Amino acid sequence: MNSENFSLSEKIVSPAYVRQGSQARRSHEQLIRHLLEQGKCPEEGWSESTIELFLNELAVMDSNNFLSNCGVGEREGRVASSLVARRHYRFKLIHGIGRSGDIAAVQPKAAGSSLLNKLTNSVVLDILKLSGVQKVASCFVVPMATGMSLTLCFLTLRHRRPKARYIIWPRIDQKSCFKAMITAGFEPVVVENVLEGDELRTDLEAVERKIEELGAENILCVHSTTSCFAPRVPDRLEELATVCAKHNLPHIVNNAYGVQSSKCMHLIQQGARVGRIDAFVQSLDKNFMVPVGGAIIAGFDESFIQEISKMYPGRASASPSLDVLITLLTLGASGYKRLLSERKEIYSLLAQELKTLASAHGERLLHTPHNPISLAMSLDGLQAESNKAVTHLGSMLFTRQVSGARVIPLGKEQTVSGHTFRGFMSHSEAYPCPYLNAASAVGITREDVTLCIKRLDKCLKTLKKEGTAAKSSSPVPPPCQEDTGEE
Amino acid sequence: MNSENFSLSEKIVSPAYVRQGSQARRSHEQLIRHLLEQGKCPEEGWSESTIELFLNELAVMDSNNFLSNCGVGEREGRVASSLVARRHYRFKLIHGIGRSGDIAAVQPKAAGSSLLNKLTNSVVLDILKLSGVQKVASCFVVPMATGMSLTLCFLTLRHRRPKARYIIWPRIDQKSCFKAMITAGFEPVVVENVLEGDELRTDLEAVERKIEELGAENILCVHSTTSCFAPRVPDRLEELATVCAKHNLPHIVNNAYGVQSSKCMHLIQQGARVGRIDAFVQSLDKNFMVPVGGAIIAGFDESFIQEISKMYPGRASASPSLDVLITLLTLGASGYKRLLSERKEIYSLLAQELKTLASAHGERLLHTPHNPISLAMSLDGLQAESNKAVTHLGSMLFTRQVSGARVIPLGKEQTVSGHTFRGFMSHSEAYPCPYLNAASAVGITREDVTLCIKRLDKCLKTLKKEGTAAKSSSPVPPPCQEDTGEE
Amino acid sequence: MNSENFSLSEKIVSPAYVRQGSQARRSHEQLIRHLLEQGKCPEEGWSESTIELFLNELAVMDSNNFLSNCGVGEREGRVASSLVARRHYRFKLIHGIGRSGDIAAVQPKAAGSSLLNKLTNSVVLDILKLSGVQKVASCFVVPMATGMSLTLCFLTLRHRRPKARYIIWPRIDQKSCFKAMITAGFEPVVVENVLEGDELRTDLEAVERKIEELGAENILCVHSTTSCFAPRVPDRLEELATVCAKHNLPHIVNNAYGVQSSKCMHLIQQGARVGRIDAFVQSLDKNFMVPVGGAIIAGFDESFIQEISKMYPGRASASPSLDVLITLLTLGASGYKRLLSERKEIYSLLAQELKTLASAHGERLLHTPHNPISLAMSLDGLQAESNKAVTHLGSMLFTRQVSGARVIPLGKEQTVSGHTFRGFMSHSEAYPCPYLNAASAVGITREDVTLCIKRLDKCLKTLKKEGTAAKSSSPVPPPCQEDTGEE
Amino acid sequence: MNSENFSLSEKIVSPAYVRQGSQARRSHEQLIRHLLEQGKCPEEGWSESTIELFLNELAVMDSNNFLSNCGVGEREGRVASSLVARRHYRFKLIHGIGRSGDIAAVQPKAAGSSLLNKLTNSVVLDILKLSGVQKVASCFVVPMATGMSLTLCFLTLRHRRPKARYIIWPRIDQKSCFKAMITAGFEPVVVENVLEGDELRTDLEAVERKIEELGAENILCVHSTTSCFAPRVPDRLEELATVCAKHNLPHIVNNAYGVQSSKCMHLIQQGARVGRIDAFVQSLDKNFMVPVGGAIIAGFDESFIQEISKMYPGRASASPSLDVLITLLTLGASGYKRLLSERKEIYSLLAQELKTLASAHGERLLHTPHNPISLAMSLDGLQAESNKAVTHLGSMLFTRQVSGARVIPLGKEQTVSGHTFRGFMSHSEAYPCPYLNAASAVGITREDVTLCIKRLDKCLKTLKKEGTAAKSSSPVPPPCQEDTGEE
Repeated sequence: MNSENFSLSEKIVSPAYVRQGSQARRSHEQLIRHLLEQGKCPEEGWSESTIELFLNELAVMDSNNFLSNCGVGEREGRVASSLVARRHYRFKLIHGIGRSGDIAAVQPKAAGSSLLNKLTNSVVLDILKLSGVQKVASCFVVPMATGMSLTLCFLTLRHRRPKARYIIWPRIDQKSCFKAMITAGFEPVVVENVLEGDELRTDLEAVERKIEELGAENILCVHSTTSCFAPRVPDRLEELATVCAKHNLPHIVNNAYGVQSSKCMHLIQQGARVGRIDAFVQSLDKNFMVPVGGAIIAGFDESFIQEISKMYPGRASASPSLDVLITLLTLGASGYKRLLSERKEIYSLLAQELKTLASAHGERLLHTPHNPISLAMSLDGLQAESNKAVTHLGSMLFTRQVSGARVIPLGKEQTVSGHTFRGFMSHSEAYPCPYLNAASAVGITREDVTLCIKRLDKCLKTLKKEGTAAKSSSPVPPPCQEDTGEE
Repeated sequence: MNSENFSLSEKIVSPAYVRQGSQARRSHEQLIRHLLEQGKCPEEGWSESTIELFLNELAVMDSNNFLSNCGVGEREGRVASSLVARRHYRFKLIHGIGRSGDIAAVQPKAAGSSLLNKLTNSVVLDILKLSGVQKVASCFVVPMATGMSLTLCFLTLRHRRPKARYIIWPRIDQKSCFKAMITAGFEPVVVENVLEGDELRTDLEAVERKIEELGAENILCVHSTTSCFAPRVPDRLEELATVCAKHNLPHIVNNAYGVQSSKCMHLIQQGARVGRIDAFVQSLDKNFMVPVGGAIIAGFDESFIQEISKMYPGRASASPSLDVLITLLTLGASGYKRLLSERKEIYSLLAQELKTLASAHGERLLHTPHNPISLAMSLDGLQAESNKAVTHLGSMLFTRQVSGARVIPLGKEQTVSGHTFRGFMSHSEAYPCPYLNAASAVGITREDVTLCIKRLDKCLKTLKKEGTAAKSSSPVPPPCQEDTGEE
Repeated sequence: MNSENFSLSEKIVSPAYVRQGSQARRSHEQLIRHLLEQGKCPEEGWSESTIELFLNELAVMDSNNFLSNCGVGEREGRVASSLVARRHYRFKLIHGIGRSGDIAAVQPKAAGSSLLNKLTNSVVLDILKLSGVQKVASCFVVPMATGMSLTLCFLTLRHRRPKARYIIWPRIDQKSCFKAMITAGFEPVVVENVLEGDELRTDLEAVERKIEELGAENILCVHSTTSCFAPRVPDRLEELATVCAKHNLPHIVNNAYGVQSSKCMHLIQQGARVGRIDAFVQSLDKNFMVPVGGAIIAGFDESFIQEISKMYPGRASASPSLDVLITLLTLGASGYKRLLSERKEIYSLLAQELKTLASAHGERLLHTPHNPISLAMSLDGLQAESNKAVTHLGSMLFTRQVSGARVIPLGKEQTVSGHTFRGFMSHSEAYPCPYLNAASAVGITREDVTLCIKRLDKCLKTLKKEGTAAKSSSPVPPPCQEDTGEE
Repeated sequence: MNSENFSLSEKIVSPAYVRQGSQARRSHEQLIRHLLEQGKCPEEGWSESTIELFLNELAVMDSNNFLSNCGVGEREGRVASSLVARRHYRFKLIHGIGRSGDIAAVQPKAAGSSLLNKLTNSVVLDILKLSGVQKVASCFVVPMATGMSLTLCFLTLRHRRPKARYIIWPRIDQKSCFKAMITAGFEPVVVENVLEGDELRTDLEAVERKIEELGAENILCVHSTTSCFAPRVPDRLEELATVCAKHNLPHIVNNAYGVQSSKCMHLIQQGARVGRIDAFVQSLDKNFMVPVGGAIIAGFDESFIQEISKMYPGRASASPSLDVLITLLTLGASGYKRLLSERKEIYSLLAQELKTLASAHGERLLHTPHNPISLAMSLDGLQAESNKAVTHLGSMLFTRQVSGARVIPLGKEQTVSGHTFRGFMSHSEAYPCPYLNAASAVGITREDVTLCIKRLDKCLKTLKKEGTAAKSSSPVPPPCQEDTGEE
């Protein structure tokens, strides 16, 4: 309430109590002021009451909530269902973000939504810095998944490099980032990884060879990856960035779920410091525990990032921006950092537990120290029985509600958009052994690890006991667990 | 509750009452059964209680809501903020829709979300048929605005027509559909409209001339438009579709807010009947009164629509699908049809009122019978005073909370993505007079019309009284009202 | 947001848009100002957004929402469940209303809740005036049902009349108002009604006779009733009030669902004008369409009403106050008046339809013009078959989801708290015929009437067809429909 | 969804996934089954999703939610405001609890609400047992505060002891329990406490003396208290119960916030074991962290508790029942026990901290080992300056948002309902010193203690520095902090 209404209230209940009430209101306003002034994620998380107060304030600023508005346009923020209105903070934030000219532009009809959008981008930029990429200059939230966001980056680069046809891509067996290139109309040049110990790492020489072979002017960019399933490890970003700088070649990094790992973020910071990175793209849901559907496109040159944002034709959903802003205000910077350090600790726990389990079953935890999130345990014993046993383990885990664990059999072949991948899912044409993946991603709990190990142990025992008999016992065709975990 | 729990309840309260309660539950289940069986929009709208019951049921089917789930993947549907969880039906529907392979694919981890997605597409298809495109074969909701959805269509066509560089585009002054072509990497070939009476209509001869000039094999498609601001009227779809069929040329229709008009839908139906239309794209928010951010891509050949859906790399937000499903279940087919017929009636009212107002001010309502949604009133009198007076009217209306009314001054020039448009906003290089637009879009009320006319009348009177004096009186630079109403 | 935060926002998005947003906020504040100033129900209802904004503002004024509060008392407004917190406007309104001294007192810890309480009582007082009791001087909402509220009135009177043992009570067959006297520790003196035509009316002579017989000093008060089931009609309040004034006897009116009827309210206004009425009590749920659990105690002498409010020992739930305030702000005075006039129209419709139905079945609508809400239709034909048939009609209607229709068989006898009522439920020892009741209460729709008549018609036909055979066919003991409709 | 709908779903998305979804649903149903079967608080708390699923199921069982219901009664559970409907679980639980005959009775129109009511009482009974009164036989939740609930007990006893006029009441300075007796129409016989060390304890001899003096037949009951502010300690329940048994006198215990203390509960258990306790009454909000407005009336003789429940005339609000059920299902028995043991630990912490603070300021923590919740610290030093300084400390703490701390000056006299209490608030006519109270109540955090001690320390320093100068510096009349903390 404004001061006039507080004064009136003092006539109804005791002035001393009302004054204390109005002072209490001011303490919420102070938090909001700080956010508006600094544009940073608050160190301490806000209470839900402050967040709802703030969102309500933003909502009343949008024209569709003006009490005396009349609308004769073709898009007036009307909402037919009160259930839907409520989901979007009632009377509110219906206008989405951006304008036809620019997804980051301000809307005349929607001061509140525009403010929401600007603040979200600003708070997210702050979090990217805190997470390790101090040099980042600009970013924006886009209501599309990581793959489509990568496509948008490639489409933007096309205008700068109209002759280019190829994208250099160190292999990672994840469909959507491969398709991001196809959808944008380019031809991916797949560079196979090299095996170092158990790890699959970027083949730098092959990359350079390809650049020279095709001619830098015919290449749109190098498209590298940080977060990935073990035994593949993050690409050698520093070296790739140096190569790109040398050849004056753009460099786009798929950092899908890398914000949660200081190692991945450090690679990007270093790459940008010593060489060239034009943009890096990360998923909202995987890093910030919000529903699927948004990504952050970030980079070191503000004008290039703006160019990408201007490529998005039309307005867009404010829903992912709203979700991530609420989440970051709730957690605060300290809360987010706490989540990240818990994740790291549980990674060690998971590694330890998998190691113990592996040796109990005559298997081993693959040695992949460069992968800070995902782990892999060999399944040589199962394989010895049959390839089917490996697949069967996958469906057993699915039925037992162990989600996210993937089993990777040997020798799978798959054709994606015309390109045939041998050894699909293993990032390699011929990885030496089948294996099972498990990851410690942000939000994981110790209980997740305990339950997973217990159930996995049980499954392995059952499979061994039954021997090959087990394989035919499943009356239902096993759901294709292997494929889960893809974006 | 299941039957066991109902039986237990009978021991606690009177069996007769519990039986009646369980029977009541069954009546909700019957509605759900009908939806699952038919996949159609129910004729009568559901109560909010049935809708929430249904959404809750879907939610419990997703793995992140399994009570004994343990997650060791990199994407586990975890949510950090309870405010965010609640927005997305609590514990629910966090997984988004689709998989890396296909935005329409089923997710193993999320039976509920997958069901939601399939049903939404099915219900929306039913509504497209009811609205006039009976021939439509397939459609899907995509969480991107109309412009980006058009881009996706163009990107899909590129794989079919790798040599093509051009898109034939009868001019419509709306930035995002122009940019949709630029973003996809094509060169728009702008075909100016012809003036017939007050109306701006498709120059069919010029289109054919361009096709022959450039060669059909170098052209990606014809990109036409239905819904638009008067005095431009919907493109001659039948004729364009016939031309496309003749030249074996794809044809994409921007039907942004055309679902709400039986005329626009009839044009598409007829076009597809006599000639060729590959896909037509419409906005969710403009046609279904939901928040900005989603579109429907629809067509007459199921396999082509599937091809487009497979081009989207990665999962996507379920938020727009959820909003439109809730809205259509709330309204029912009959409720949606009622909204459309109200819109039509209010269009006549608005036309009548504008006509009366116009003649009172020495202006006239432009005669644009082919445009079923938007109207235009000349502003010759204001123009006589100065171009500034026209612009000033725009900002006056903005300040008086008349949203959506646009004023179009003469001779504006604007460069969009390198292309210069003379007479920008008027769809014509030299429209004979400046004018003001108002539209009757779905959800408009009689009160909107009354208020708009009253305020407009007042503004025109003030401007006349003040004469040129008025123009300098605005201390604040007038907000650029002209631009609102763009997607 | 306060002005400082609006200024900061202007640096982030365009000042012109922010200014418009802040102006929009002001229009909500204006509505709140008006409420605080006038303490009256706003003429036009508020939007949900204004209501939630207002409730949020009240909530932040309560100490349990202070961001830096620390609590070391035994009652600190803590809430363990976020579901519960949200129900009560999150961080809010947990303190209930009143203090140990007085249910209407202001709480130091809870300026917001106190304001809510004061405003609710003030708005409700305004509505009582608008509904016809212009003379009412004071009232308060109490979170107890009508019966317990009557008990509180009687307990308060005891302190003024310590010798009194009896309460004079014109018979009405509704248990809770009878028990209200028993619970308060008094002996009800039941005065049988007289039959005038079909109507059962107050026997004024018998009342006076009782007063003289027992001695006014031994009588606590007269306890009369307005709203009741036909064929009983509202008590003759003017005459009773005159009698009470003459004998210097308190007079308490049970006006349970009478606010919705201008006739009932007029009786109270007139009674107070010509004679004595000390307090009148009405249900919140029955008159204002809120959940069960609250009542309004009102009267013409502020100090007596205050005396009652001070009798309530301890704090009380704010839930009923909150519900009724939200409802009245949503409806506005005009909305509430519209509801009442619709109710009146549907009363006429229901009477007409029942009349037609009755004559089709050889029955008649009892002539009860003094009862403005409830109607009765004779069931002589059914009775002719057997008493069981009458009862069976009740359970048939229950099973067919006709709720609120009551069938009244002849000659039922029931003992309540030691007192035996002959002809129980019919307000008379020997009403001439059995009958069925139906009422037109606030919120009823035309569809309710249509469905009820249709189903009733069907039931009567079935019963006639089956004859006595029907009576034994019900395998389940028929639920005791007769009793529904009691408070 | 029922099995039919699951089958239909299998045709739309993969059967294996739907099966897993339906299995997930079953795990929620299992929890509900367990609750219905056992009627006990589940050991582990439920997730919010299970709770909402359950409440939704209950809601659909109420007649006002039947899709084809038609209502022609005077109370049909209609709701005018969707905000209000939503607060009460939408379409749901509008009917309140009980019937005119009995607040615990089943309602024909509302199977869901009735089930809710029965389960709540059953779960609460389980918690009372777990908290230490294993012998408790019956209880019910009543939507009135503790004071009014005590009144209801006294009114019920009146029917058993029509001659009785007095209630024996060991003094405790809390208005609402005193008024509970006045409101019920009885004369409280105040028995002063005796000072043992610092503690104020029951004067058993005086109690017996009074009984003999007045004659047991003229006494309604003994009304004792467990939870209270130090230095008063819980009454000697065992001894009082023995006395009551001996004199065949009813005994009602005010256990307002005693459920949270195993000591208080043990006293009741023991009292009932060795002597006579007819009923004990406890507040919902103070023990279970729900909003103000409900109480539990419990006892050892089921028929007497039923007699009380039958005294409540009319239906009542289900809101407090709903809140406590949600809270207990959320916490589970283990969660509630954890809260209680945390409270106990923080009690020790608070005692320790206050002791240290006291000695730093030349004061001392009063030695009150029999009071398990409340503590008192002497304020002799302040008193030495003036009585005003003591009062001023109260308002300073209020302004600094330390809520719940009370300062008790010497020699206050107050008249409540005609009875004059000397030394009011100190439970004694002449307590030796003024003091400050602080309590460790359920839900308190370590941070509350730290902040309270810090602020209190600062206030005491300020007061000492300023000396008497401070006392006149407060421009606003100090809010009456002393009174807070009363029910």
